Amino acid sequence: MRIETDFLGEMAMDDAVYYGIQTERARLNFAVSGRLASDVPYYIASIAVLKQAAAKANHAIGALDKAQADAIVQACEEVIAGKFADQFPIDVFQGGGGTSSNMNMNEVLANRANEILTGQKGYDAVHPNTHVNMGQSTNDVIPAAMKVTSYQAVNGLIDEVAKLEAVLAQKTEDFADIVKLARTCLQDAVPMTFGQQFSGYYHQVKRLHQALITANRGNLELPLGATAVGTGLSTHEGYLDRVYEELQALTDTPYVAEENFFDGLQNGDGYLEVAAQVKKLAVFLSKMATDFRIQSSGPRAGFNELILPAVQPGSSIMPGKINPVMPELVNQIAYQIIGNDTAITMAVEGGELDLNVWEPVIIKSLFESIQLLTNTLPLFIEKCIADIEPNVDVAREYAEKSTALATVIASLFGYKVGCQVASAAFDQNKRVRDVVLEQGILTPEQADYLLDPMVMTDPAKSAAAIRRYQEEQQ
Amino acid sequence: MRIETDFLGEMAMDDAVYYGIQTERARLNFAVSGRLASDVPYYIASIAVLKQAAAKANHAIGALDKAQADAIVQACEEVIAGKFADQFPIDVFQGGGGTSSNMNMNEVLANRANEILTGQKGYDAVHPNTHVNMGQSTNDVIPAAMKVTSYQAVNGLIDEVAKLEAVLAQKTEDFADIVKLARTCLQDAVPMTFGQQFSGYYHQVKRLHQALITANRGNLELPLGATAVGTGLSTHEGYLDRVYEELQALTDTPYVAEENFFDGLQNGDGYLEVAAQVKKLAVFLSKMATDFRIQSSGPRAGFNELILPAVQPGSSIMPGKINPVMPELVNQIAYQIIGNDTAITMAVEGGELDLNVWEPVIIKSLFESIQLLTNTLPLFIEKCIADIEPNVDVAREYAEKSTALATVIASLFGYKVGCQVASAAFDQNKRVRDVVLEQGILTPEQADYLLDPMVMTDPAKSAAAIRRYQEEQQ
Amino acid sequence: MRIETDFLGEMAMDDAVYYGIQTERARLNFAVSGRLASDVPYYIASIAVLKQAAAKANHAIGALDKAQADAIVQACEEVIAGKFADQFPIDVFQGGGGTSSNMNMNEVLANRANEILTGQKGYDAVHPNTHVNMGQSTNDVIPAAMKVTSYQAVNGLIDEVAKLEAVLAQKTEDFADIVKLARTCLQDAVPMTFGQQFSGYYHQVKRLHQALITANRGNLELPLGATAVGTGLSTHEGYLDRVYEELQALTDTPYVAEENFFDGLQNGDGYLEVAAQVKKLAVFLSKMATDFRIQSSGPRAGFNELILPAVQPGSSIMPGKINPVMPELVNQIAYQIIGNDTAITMAVEGGELDLNVWEPVIIKSLFESIQLLTNTLPLFIEKCIADIEPNVDVAREYAEKSTALATVIASLFGYKVGCQVASAAFDQNKRVRDVVLEQGILTPEQADYLLDPMVMTDPAKSAAAIRRYQEEQQ
Amino acid sequence: MRIETDFLGEMAMDDAVYYGIQTERARLNFAVSGRLASDVPYYIASIAVLKQAAAKANHAIGALDKAQADAIVQACEEVIAGKFADQFPIDVFQGGGGTSSNMNMNEVLANRANEILTGQKGYDAVHPNTHVNMGQSTNDVIPAAMKVTSYQAVNGLIDEVAKLEAVLAQKTEDFADIVKLARTCLQDAVPMTFGQQFSGYYHQVKRLHQALITANRGNLELPLGATAVGTGLSTHEGYLDRVYEELQALTDTPYVAEENFFDGLQNGDGYLEVAAQVKKLAVFLSKMATDFRIQSSGPRAGFNELILPAVQPGSSIMPGKINPVMPELVNQIAYQIIGNDTAITMAVEGGELDLNVWEPVIIKSLFESIQLLTNTLPLFIEKCIADIEPNVDVAREYAEKSTALATVIASLFGYKVGCQVASAAFDQNKRVRDVVLEQGILTPEQADYLLDPMVMTDPAKSAAAIRRYQEEQQ
Repeated sequence: MRIETDFLGEMAMDDAVYYGIQTERARLNFAVSGRLASDVPYYIASIAVLKQAAAKANHAIGALDKAQADAIVQACEEVIAGKFADQFPIDVFQGGGGTSSNMNMNEVLANRANEILTGQKGYDAVHPNTHVNMGQSTNDVIPAAMKVTSYQAVNGLIDEVAKLEAVLAQKTEDFADIVKLARTCLQDAVPMTFGQQFSGYYHQVKRLHQALITANRGNLELPLGATAVGTGLSTHEGYLDRVYEELQALTDTPYVAEENFFDGLQNGDGYLEVAAQVKKLAVFLSKMATDFRIQSSGPRAGFNELILPAVQPGSSIMPGKINPVMPELVNQIAYQIIGNDTAITMAVEGGELDLNVWEPVIIKSLFESIQLLTNTLPLFIEKCIADIEPNVDVAREYAEKSTALATVIASLFGYKVGCQVASAAFDQNKRVRDVVLEQGILTPEQADYLLDPMVMTDPAKSAAAIRRYQEEQQ
Repeated sequence: MRIETDFLGEMAMDDAVYYGIQTERARLNFAVSGRLASDVPYYIASIAVLKQAAAKANHAIGALDKAQADAIVQACEEVIAGKFADQFPIDVFQGGGGTSSNMNMNEVLANRANEILTGQKGYDAVHPNTHVNMGQSTNDVIPAAMKVTSYQAVNGLIDEVAKLEAVLAQKTEDFADIVKLARTCLQDAVPMTFGQQFSGYYHQVKRLHQALITANRGNLELPLGATAVGTGLSTHEGYLDRVYEELQALTDTPYVAEENFFDGLQNGDGYLEVAAQVKKLAVFLSKMATDFRIQSSGPRAGFNELILPAVQPGSSIMPGKINPVMPELVNQIAYQIIGNDTAITMAVEGGELDLNVWEPVIIKSLFESIQLLTNTLPLFIEKCIADIEPNVDVAREYAEKSTALATVIASLFGYKVGCQVASAAFDQNKRVRDVVLEQGILTPEQADYLLDPMVMTDPAKSAAAIRRYQEEQQ
Repeated sequence: MRIETDFLGEMAMDDAVYYGIQTERARLNFAVSGRLASDVPYYIASIAVLKQAAAKANHAIGALDKAQADAIVQACEEVIAGKFADQFPIDVFQGGGGTSSNMNMNEVLANRANEILTGQKGYDAVHPNTHVNMGQSTNDVIPAAMKVTSYQAVNGLIDEVAKLEAVLAQKTEDFADIVKLARTCLQDAVPMTFGQQFSGYYHQVKRLHQALITANRGNLELPLGATAVGTGLSTHEGYLDRVYEELQALTDTPYVAEENFFDGLQNGDGYLEVAAQVKKLAVFLSKMATDFRIQSSGPRAGFNELILPAVQPGSSIMPGKINPVMPELVNQIAYQIIGNDTAITMAVEGGELDLNVWEPVIIKSLFESIQLLTNTLPLFIEKCIADIEPNVDVAREYAEKSTALATVIASLFGYKVGCQVASAAFDQNKRVRDVVLEQGILTPEQADYLLDPMVMTDPAKSAAAIRRYQEEQQ
Repeated sequence: MRIETDFLGEMAMDDAVYYGIQTERARLNFAVSGRLASDVPYYIASIAVLKQAAAKANHAIGALDKAQADAIVQACEEVIAGKFADQFPIDVFQGGGGTSSNMNMNEVLANRANEILTGQKGYDAVHPNTHVNMGQSTNDVIPAAMKVTSYQAVNGLIDEVAKLEAVLAQKTEDFADIVKLARTCLQDAVPMTFGQQFSGYYHQVKRLHQALITANRGNLELPLGATAVGTGLSTHEGYLDRVYEELQALTDTPYVAEENFFDGLQNGDGYLEVAAQVKKLAVFLSKMATDFRIQSSGPRAGFNELILPAVQPGSSIMPGKINPVMPELVNQIAYQIIGNDTAITMAVEGGELDLNVWEPVIIKSLFESIQLLTNTLPLFIEKCIADIEPNVDVAREYAEKSTALATVIASLFGYKVGCQVASAAFDQNKRVRDVVLEQGILTPEQADYLLDPMVMTDPAKSAAAIRRYQEEQQ
């Protein structure tokens, strides 16, 4: 046991643990979710690399001894390498705007640095506040660490989105010549191809991909150096420039200081922006997942025009049943992400005065959302999209029998004639082709080129068909 | 022109208007939404009836002269009758927790009361604060008026819900013998009847109906009498008891004082409760609307098992197209109501210290939600649910050809045999009946009573069928 | 290794694991959140107790052999006792409406039952679908298990709410005579006592407590017996009655069958109801937490009228700083719970046709919310509310110097005189008492009994003071 | 009366109205909110200008006669000029994805064009579908009109944001030398200036301003030309290029066709993007409004460090009370906008298959949000921000007496000494300056330059002060 003290009192700490009294207080104060701050990917390492950059900068500008700096730097490297993964025991939910996580890091690094320098834990040689936290405050370190975390997490997500974009491009090509019937308001409309359907997905993802890249640039601007309230109070001369040099070198990433630190500490629009782009992606995925579920409904009493890979039996009671479980997973992820966006919005809106202290719930919600998407996308691609197949014959049959093919009749003979043909087809349970032939509106040859579903999917071809007809009539 | 003054200065008011300087300031300060507080059904009359009760009570306890009281009471009656509908020109959104709407009422009543007593507007005989507002504060009057408004609005909604319940009960009965195939995960499952489907709706609405009635009871407890912060400061002796007697007599409704006024002014859980029940109703209606849209999809390339009444042409370009516009209306109403619930939640959560001043946005959102449902329900019933019809033949065909009928085989011969039958049926594009006959698993007679879809919809019949088979086997 | 098969193929399972092929498929399909279904308190045990009741019922009605039933029952007991806690490895997010968790349980129980009966795992003696799942479907078991889980979780929460109610009642009493100034719109208003402030909290919690109890009753009605779609298909005669008898006996809880099973499977309003009540509680706690934060702001440049216990140092850089970390924790919990309510709402709204399959995200969100509150409340009570203290002198000083004491003057001399006094007090930076004495409006004796803040906190006393003054004037 | 027919029947229309049978059906079907589609600023004119461009293009490519085209164009000009403002009577909420609003426009234009050509209403010379709607579908016209509407509405908002940016820049400069105490977690922290506070606002708004401009670019890409499902079916050769030329000429705005029309009709991410940026702005405004409310709390029992202009009396009962009504307005607007974002999110997520038909609720929610901000901003600027003033003396006093000034002591003498000084100051109710002098830690001269609050607000000056001290010590 060793005794640690703070200005509220003292506690006996187990010799084995590297964290200290403030961590222990926080561990006990906030044990509510069962999810630790250290469960958030990249987060602990992101704090550590900032501490490392600060120690190097403070030494370079003469504010910190070489021995102290070297020990802190080594301790940071060890944390980043995962050596003390179990030494960050505080819940992800915390009061105090992340002070507890910052002090947790300061204490672990100080105890480890002392151990390096003196052979035993303690704060004699390196103090958590005086040395490890030198030139820093929770108020700049934690939001900076969140942005560094977010930058890496979003990059991870972007990689998966790129794969999604590629597979959708491939499907667009693969399905280019497979005709289906489009529906609007879930009601039969005019023909299009599966390739066109997937081209819509592909272009959407291309745009979302770019939006994520753009949003992630905002994560490169950090409040590090703002210290407590944005004034940089207690930083030593030269620190600000040097700490970014060190950070860039350590991370090989062009992190820079925010243009205005007061803005940086007060406002969480950067988190909202990432949350918004993540939500847009989730919303689209959910829409696409719903399409897949509707189009694969049946197999006998539904649309049955799209065949999803079977990945697991679908029922404990109904033998042979297969469910669209991967799209269903996606829908649910989206619901959670939309809910998390509300939580993040409230946290940003709830900012007061000179610091937004609601970072912990932002960390929890935002990084849960990113992680859910990053983990779900490869599964959704591999176990669903990659092997999705149109039910070609069923889909063509739908395209040929829609009464909405009368749209072509309307564009040639006016809307009224179009309605009359459509109504006749519906009432008599016939195809539009049959009705127009019976009524002598078109010849069989004309019907061939005017009512071919594949022609209707191509505006050039359908315009040409209309022109051909008009020329024949003249 | 007449000159009105307050402690910030003076303004010239048009002689024709009954409202005064504070109303005019507020009209100019808050012109943001184009929707007035007076556009909210019941709201202005609800404030007026509270003023009327207060005037009567203050006179009864000797705090207010008879002439003043009578004039105020008459003015209130006129407001309630709609005589000054254009004299409440302030936006529904307001800063200040409704002070502007309260003062608007005080000023209109004072000017009108003076006019009654003296022949001209002004505050000499009756003053808006001293007399009209006697024993009151915005802080008790406005939330009390909101509850009175809510009580009436929810009652109006309940009437429509009762009609919905009745029509669903009727459909449950009408469709009792029409078989269909159920789907789970949008995939073919086992048979049920349309009556059973609608019985699910009916029981849901019955429960929601009761929940609304229960929630509305909370609207009977008012903070009237709390005045500024809950202490009742500035009320005269006997006021509290008397004002509720008067209010009950005027409204024929058992309004009572809240158990604790501090609670009443601080907390908006009553609004949240109504919002929650309204949201539950909207969520269910949206779910049912989606069912209708899916089941009526097609007509040729969709489920086509439910026929919705055609209420308008569905397309400007595709002749003959009909869309499920009434259910689509319902889905959208639900989205707005869910969004409004978030707004209301934030307004209640954002309460600070001794008064929640976010009532105006609660008024806007909550009463918009209630009004949307109250107006939508009769249209949805009349133009959709009342004339909805199953597509009987299509639905029966679905029920008969599902491979999930192998569930019965599984319950007789074990899950493995069930799977083998289902797979064979699916792979060979056959019915379960054909497969079990071909494989000699059942005799035609056994298949008749075991695989009849209507039998499967009734647990007693299906259990009896299983028992009959088992007895035959012994 | 043992080989397990389903109708999609076969997999080699490690001999040590009790789960089977369908679990393994699901484990791989849904590994997205890092949070397992088995991390949800009560959930696995709730499924198991339903299986236990079903096995006993099926045996009692003659559908299941005694040996099989006994083995299943024993296996259930072991699961409930926590023996196989690591055998439920599937993510809490799942496609397929919980089929994976149901099959996970079926497989674990079947393997264990076989082991009991034959000495080795496998399904020869007891099959997961045929025997363990007899008379059941995922579609009734999982929502029934959710309700059983919810019942217990909400009961756990209610226990904490009861403690909150008690501590608030105590504070109401303790602080009954400590005067403070109320604020409305954050602006100085009239006096009240800290006891009155806390009485508002107390009454709110009392109401929320009851609302939770009422909502929890809904969890006693289960869809168990509905099987796949509500028809109870494949249950044996007598099962329905018997299974509830067994369940009641096993749990000592009056679980009953829902009135209408179709409703039960289609609609998730019960989850929405619990979510709504949980949200109401969170919203109130957040409001109270904000009060505490504002009232304890300072200590020198803020309100400084409420003293929160210091539970940890508040800053890594500013020595001696203490933050209101416990209330801050509460605000953040509330944000997450409000976000989760949105997720749950979407999941219920997104229900389609004959089954709502979005249960997994409801499980995740709803039980996270309940757990957060259940864990936070005792910490908030113990580390904040229990030891909260008014700053008596500061608070009294505020109460005495507010210009809003002129409210009493207004109620005696009319609003205009009140305004004049208040303005004079403000402009000359004096107390209302000093102004009214200077202006000869009141005598010192009158000022003593009319402007005493404590008198103003009590409507009877303040009305008596006004009457006394009026009598003196006559 | 004239008789109009559609394929569902006929209706007698009043001769005076320009709209026709489909409008009338829709008017009756959707009367739910009391808010009309034509109440949305820019929306009707935006549809009309698209019709105008289409008529011109169809004539130019030889598909539409000159007389018909000219009459339609004239009718469009009249609509845009507001001539038929009362001829668009359909609720903003509509089923059918805007078909009703599109047909409303088609009917008004056709009746008016017939009147121009023939002297009377009717569809003989110009038919609403055949001619007015030529080459168009609701499915491309309505989302295109929404984007045109959104483009103009966002531009209107951007103008107001630019004014906000300017006024905040001015305040930043005006308040540059006025010191205050910053608070983190609402607890006293270290000094900063009001100028720094407002610089944070200014930089935030600058960024939000740019984000709106960027987001608005997305509104320039239209789906016009996609017709029913994206294939452009029924457009004539050359239409697509020509219609954008005409539209650009008519609007002087560089509208172009979307890269992929299927994407354009399926996905509503563009609306979500605008909604997200609008929400970010609202969230920030709400945060700033809360700051103003907290900082102006009091005047005697609160922060009282910021003085807001008095714009109206604040209480019906408490004389002289002034409330921060303009910031309170802003908070409430934000709540509604956040709620609307949820509604929009659900509408986009709820898209199915080849068309998102939930545009009406998006129109309602998104344009309400934009309008609220556009109308609120000038009021908030004029009636609050422009004349806001620091309470200079109070603010300086706060800055000087904070115990957090011990931060400087900690950075010179280590965290432990800093804590000891801060604790002594707090316990003995002294200033940090007094404690360090008493304890002989600093000389009065040193205290002068090290503990000057204004020095602490400038990192260069505070670093220089520390260096000066260190040099003196050597």
